[in-house]
Amino acid sequence: MIFLTFPEQQLRSFTEQVFLKMGCSVKDAQLAADVLLRSDLRGIDSHGVARLTGYVRLWEKKRINASPDIKIVHETATTATVDGDAGLGLVVAPFAMKVAIEKAKIYGSGWVSVKNSNHFGIAGYHSLLATEHDMIGISMTNASPLVAPTYSNERLLGTNPMCYAFPAGKYPPVVVDMATAAAANGKLEIAQRSNSSIPEGWVQDKNGVISTNPHELKDGGSLLPLGGDKDHGSHKGYGLGATVDILSAVLSGANYGPWVPPFVAFLEPPSDPVGEGIGHFFGAMRIDGFRPVADFKAHLDNWIERFQSAKTVDPSKKVIIPGEPEYAAEKDRKANGIPLIDAVVNDLNDLASKLGIEAL
Amino acid sequence: MIFLTFPEQQLRSFTEQVFLKMGCSVKDAQLAADVLLRSDLRGIDSHGVARLTGYVRLWEKKRINASPDIKIVHETATTATVDGDAGLGLVVAPFAMKVAIEKAKIYGSGWVSVKNSNHFGIAGYHSLLATEHDMIGISMTNASPLVAPTYSNERLLGTNPMCYAFPAGKYPPVVVDMATAAAANGKLEIAQRSNSSIPEGWVQDKNGVISTNPHELKDGGSLLPLGGDKDHGSHKGYGLGATVDILSAVLSGANYGPWVPPFVAFLEPPSDPVGEGIGHFFGAMRIDGFRPVADFKAHLDNWIERFQSAKTVDPSKKVIIPGEPEYAAEKDRKANGIPLIDAVVNDLNDLASKLGIEAL
Repeated sequence: MIFLTFPEQQLRSFTEQVFLKMGCSVKDAQLAADVLLRSDLRGIDSHGVARLTGYVRLWEKKRINASPDIKIVHETATTATVDGDAGLGLVVAPFAMKVAIEKAKIYGSGWVSVKNSNHFGIAGYHSLLATEHDMIGISMTNASPLVAPTYSNERLLGTNPMCYAFPAGKYPPVVVDMATAAAANGKLEIAQRSNSSIPEGWVQDKNGVISTNPHELKDGGSLLPLGGDKDHGSHKGYGLGATVDILSAVLSGANYGPWVPPFVAFLEPPSDPVGEGIGHFFGAMRIDGFRPVADFKAHLDNWIERFQSAKTVDPSKKVIIPGEPEYAAEKDRKANGIPLIDAVVNDLNDLASKLGIEAL
Repeated sequence: MIFLTFPEQQLRSFTEQVFLKMGCSVKDAQLAADVLLRSDLRGIDSHGVARLTGYVRLWEKKRINASPDIKIVHETATTATVDGDAGLGLVVAPFAMKVAIEKAKIYGSGWVSVKNSNHFGIAGYHSLLATEHDMIGISMTNASPLVAPTYSNERLLGTNPMCYAFPAGKYPPVVVDMATAAAANGKLEIAQRSNSSIPEGWVQDKNGVISTNPHELKDGGSLLPLGGDKDHGSHKGYGLGATVDILSAVLSGANYGPWVPPFVAFLEPPSDPVGEGIGHFFGAMRIDGFRPVADFKAHLDNWIERFQSAKTVDPSKKVIIPGEPEYAAEKDRKANGIPLIDAVVNDLNDLASKLGIEAL
């Protein structure tokens, strides 16, 4: 695999131009680019500019509205439902998280469910908006059905990530940002490219037999929930995926389960929708609604230090604090640039030529 | 194994008498017995009256205060920290959930972190208090350290359960109630009694080698997080356990990580506490803070029906809705009584003779 490395600013400006060509406002194009770039900076390559052509294809199919009228359609002091008006999730999600943060400033907490949206990038971006205000940030989204619940061979849930972010004192925020499937689709794609087998417990074939073939999903197979099989707690991964689906979509009026519209534009959305678009869920809670911020941060620092210094099985592998590797990647890539595989660069340059913007 | 079956009312009255002998008020004794009995009714035998002697032993060691002054020590409109005054978690937790519910009635949502508490029974009991008000109920607790984070062979986290409960229309509530470890301790105990081997991925020995020996924990081994090993997503189970620990204890001022006091009275709590007692976290959100209750329930019913009718790998095993088996057990055991194994009955009768109450 060949990697080409680009300065953050070059990719950011390229990405903004693509969103402007789609008809986004300058503000929205900058915001959407910021969400995608943060993913590349944090080392989550599967959710950054590599997905840019995917968003453009959805826009070409008129499944993404580049100038949405995003608004609150239902609310109380600390809860709200937001209608994304089929906008980019990259723009709808920060809008909704800001509603949660504003409510938390006044009442201690804020909770927002979102319908009629699209893929929102990395969950961590949105949760981290809250930590900047000394709040705990929570974000979730449902997604295209790829995961079979325990005992089933039907794809009924997305990889439905949940994310919790906590601000620390001396250390970067603790960010738990995880798909509720055993393995994220991105890991499968890496194995597909190198044609290598995958561990048992990630996927099953169309008949529900555990498989180590990374191409199984193209042949009617499905991802397995976190846990893998019943003996190893797959009912828990399924339960977490269900929780994300209900909070994001049953609560807001978005599509849920197998009705969630696919991210890939070559697949049509179900013809019998049960709601509008895909759904998200956000929360913000003020730390000082529970105890003084300085006390919380001092204890979270202590928590971090205790876990970092834990005895390890293999001396070369220390216990990782959730969010630590992404923070390290962000520092490194801000300084040294973002590596992209050549296939992604070619893809982006084809897009540039189609849209009439300068190639990378 | 020999089972003896008792009518719910007999066990309830026995349990109340035990708590009265500990010095609980009539109201607290009834409430604590209700939490334990609900666990037995719902088929979660490990968390019901089988634990009664454990609570008594903690009380004998003066680690449980039978007449606590439970109070709010910090709050905003929608957030609060509760000090449990070393009371029974079975009494402290419903108090805290009620604070969350009262806040939600006024402001749409309520969130309560708890310090200085003890084991609270099943998380589902507390979440279900919210569904009775057409709210979503959330409950979590940290617990005695038994789980090693990914790459470590040190026990730093409890089985730290998280629970989400959603009220449905035609169907019982959807209740996701799960330990964030690969397997709950109760499952291990069953294998210990029958001396049978356990699946790989539940425990490791003291050196961090995966083991199928159910007795491994007695020899310095540890439970593994949901996922089992890194390849199968154990960093996610560890991240969820960490989330529960931070929300329950770092946020409230309880002990966290390896400082959580053990449930078993024969082990002393750490001599260098970082907080008070163990911690819990509760949330309540009004459904009608997001959309009309009838709409939510109709869609949740539709969600349930779609998942119940999913294609299955083995025709004899249908997809289970989270909370469905516990609801069925509750119906059955209310009508037909609660089966207890003879070892538990003997244990309870020894307790009865010691406290001077009538045997079962």
